[in-house]
Amino acid sequence: MKGVILEIAPEAQIIDISHAVQPFDILDGALIISQAYSYFPSGTVHMVIVDPGVGTTRRPVLMTGDRHLFVAPDNGVLSLIYDREERVSVRHITAEHYFLQPRSNTFHGRDIFSPVAAYLAKGVETSKFGEEITDYVRFGAPRPKPVDERTLRGVVLKVDRFGNLITNITPKDAPQLFGVDPPAFKIAIGTKAQATRICTNYAEGSPGEVFGILGSTGFLEVAANRGSANQLLGAGKGSEVNVVMEG
Amino acid sequence: MKGVILEIAPEAQIIDISHAVQPFDILDGALIISQAYSYFPSGTVHMVIVDPGVGTTRRPVLMTGDRHLFVAPDNGVLSLIYDREERVSVRHITAEHYFLQPRSNTFHGRDIFSPVAAYLAKGVETSKFGEEITDYVRFGAPRPKPVDERTLRGVVLKVDRFGNLITNITPKDAPQLFGVDPPAFKIAIGTKAQATRICTNYAEGSPGEVFGILGSTGFLEVAANRGSANQLLGAGKGSEVNVVMEG
Amino acid sequence: MKGVILEIAPEAQIIDISHAVQPFDILDGALIISQAYSYFPSGTVHMVIVDPGVGTTRRPVLMTGDRHLFVAPDNGVLSLIYDREERVSVRHITAEHYFLQPRSNTFHGRDIFSPVAAYLAKGVETSKFGEEITDYVRFGAPRPKPVDERTLRGVVLKVDRFGNLITNITPKDAPQLFGVDPPAFKIAIGTKAQATRICTNYAEGSPGEVFGILGSTGFLEVAANRGSANQLLGAGKGSEVNVVMEG
Repeated sequence: MKGVILEIAPEAQIIDISHAVQPFDILDGALIISQAYSYFPSGTVHMVIVDPGVGTTRRPVLMTGDRHLFVAPDNGVLSLIYDREERVSVRHITAEHYFLQPRSNTFHGRDIFSPVAAYLAKGVETSKFGEEITDYVRFGAPRPKPVDERTLRGVVLKVDRFGNLITNITPKDAPQLFGVDPPAFKIAIGTKAQATRICTNYAEGSPGEVFGILGSTGFLEVAANRGSANQLLGAGKGSEVNVVMEG
Repeated sequence: MKGVILEIAPEAQIIDISHAVQPFDILDGALIISQAYSYFPSGTVHMVIVDPGVGTTRRPVLMTGDRHLFVAPDNGVLSLIYDREERVSVRHITAEHYFLQPRSNTFHGRDIFSPVAAYLAKGVETSKFGEEITDYVRFGAPRPKPVDERTLRGVVLKVDRFGNLITNITPKDAPQLFGVDPPAFKIAIGTKAQATRICTNYAEGSPGEVFGILGSTGFLEVAANRGSANQLLGAGKGSEVNVVMEG
Repeated sequence: MKGVILEIAPEAQIIDISHAVQPFDILDGALIISQAYSYFPSGTVHMVIVDPGVGTTRRPVLMTGDRHLFVAPDNGVLSLIYDREERVSVRHITAEHYFLQPRSNTFHGRDIFSPVAAYLAKGVETSKFGEEITDYVRFGAPRPKPVDERTLRGVVLKVDRFGNLITNITPKDAPQLFGVDPPAFKIAIGTKAQATRICTNYAEGSPGEVFGILGSTGFLEVAANRGSANQLLGAGKGSEVNVVMEG
């Protein structure tokens, strides 16, 4: 894929954001790109490919946001970016003369997305690649829900490489947790232990303690200082999270 | 290695093709580079190092093909490229004044191949690095063979990260499989299941089905849609593949 | 992190040295950067971040050496570089106007180190980032010690991806091993086998033999040709190494 890009756009600077998305895990890919893209310079072209889903079932799309361009299969992997950008235009990429020839049925990253991204990086206008569409695939990220007056229920979106459990709960969902003098609360994942306070950095936790922390992604994480909350709690991706306000 | 390259050729653009070749697996390295190199711009210098094999036993070579340059140990890792290029010139790299000083016995990637690649990228002529040779190491890739009138026997060359089994069978070896209206056939790897049709993309397979597909590498693959053929068949690298024409 | 750098310094060339440092393993990070940095061009800015240790406990520092710049948390990860450079100046990075805004408590790599590295790459003077300090964290690497007249005791610093055991013993510590006609000796790690000679390249060892070799990092390694000393000896990082001179 990088060879194809450089053949067309020799001046392009290619940056790998992640090759660690699990195959088929579109939500994981959506999370990673939504947390990274805004830090890149204006005009950056992002290729966001989660395999498979190639072939007849997923048309290639080109999205223009406020400051960035994205090429991706139309499988929802850009959903969280549609949410964040003010101006969104999505085109179905149909201009086959920009594709690599001969084109395989199975490696669209190399044969479709790479050359299209390279021509975009060279300044070819987005309108040249296909018509605008409105029926693109867009899923809603799972949102936390109140269970009763005291309890908010969310889910673990992913486990990072330190074993921190990243939930889908933001400060907007549970503002009490992040105030200056928060009331007593418990964050329960699994049955082995509960977090009862919010730390402001990972090193603040006591050894063996699990605690809440506002992660760099804007979500509530449950973490352990120099340890793995993932292992300590026996919980992982998809685990239920209950935030219970006490008293 | 990248530091050495940039010290000599600050304008060089360095692209990682793969760091996932298994140690000592020269065939795997040969497959990877032979599938990737032709997509890079003319004049690209490819470093192809499969460890180990350094030391006295493997001389460093510089190969010039139709449009690309390659530096590698003379262990056969360029064999599949020798097959594909029309013009091939191979030189034994002996010009030690291009090597890093002091030079280690064990890290030729850093001390020999990186500086030579960097000087090539800067435009130093290939003839400056050593004499042409003809006795370089070149192995033949394993080729499928007919067992009887109905059966072609090949081998699994590698398993990709989705669990797809990449065989050494190409459309030239079994043209019937890839025609418009193929006769009945079975592709048997292991004893658990057999593929009985060719799909044109991964998403076309039914859940749990194993099927054949022409992969982006030009070889017949046995795959499963959103599943691992590797696990479904209990087969892997080196497994025997039998293509049996029925009726 | 790369997006932040390119937003500030679009001309910067970003090279990944390693993302394989174990979390919290500061010695491993210190070894990796100390073996790589000197091969990069003069003026290179090195970001050396071993997580975590962010937050209140580790101030960000900027080190200027003979030819290179380093940004890192003040957790000792630059210790082996302090040892090797003749001129060392260390500053506490306090100039918050160079940081990303808003700044998270947990992702200093993105919010502090990346923008500071980018401004350094653009030529902003080191004195702009904070005052010089002398009380930075600096640990001594574990050194081999004589046990008796015949025995030198060291430790395995790390295991590389081939299973080679990299010790903390250098030719200065045991010059007899590396002479032209060395006396009889044993290198013992674990109890399963002993190395009794030094090879000059990995391919020189016999099948199944463990042997000593001077690695490209300048340390004595215990290795096996096309095999894993790690597995053959049942030893790993932290294992005791005894070099015993015979007769």
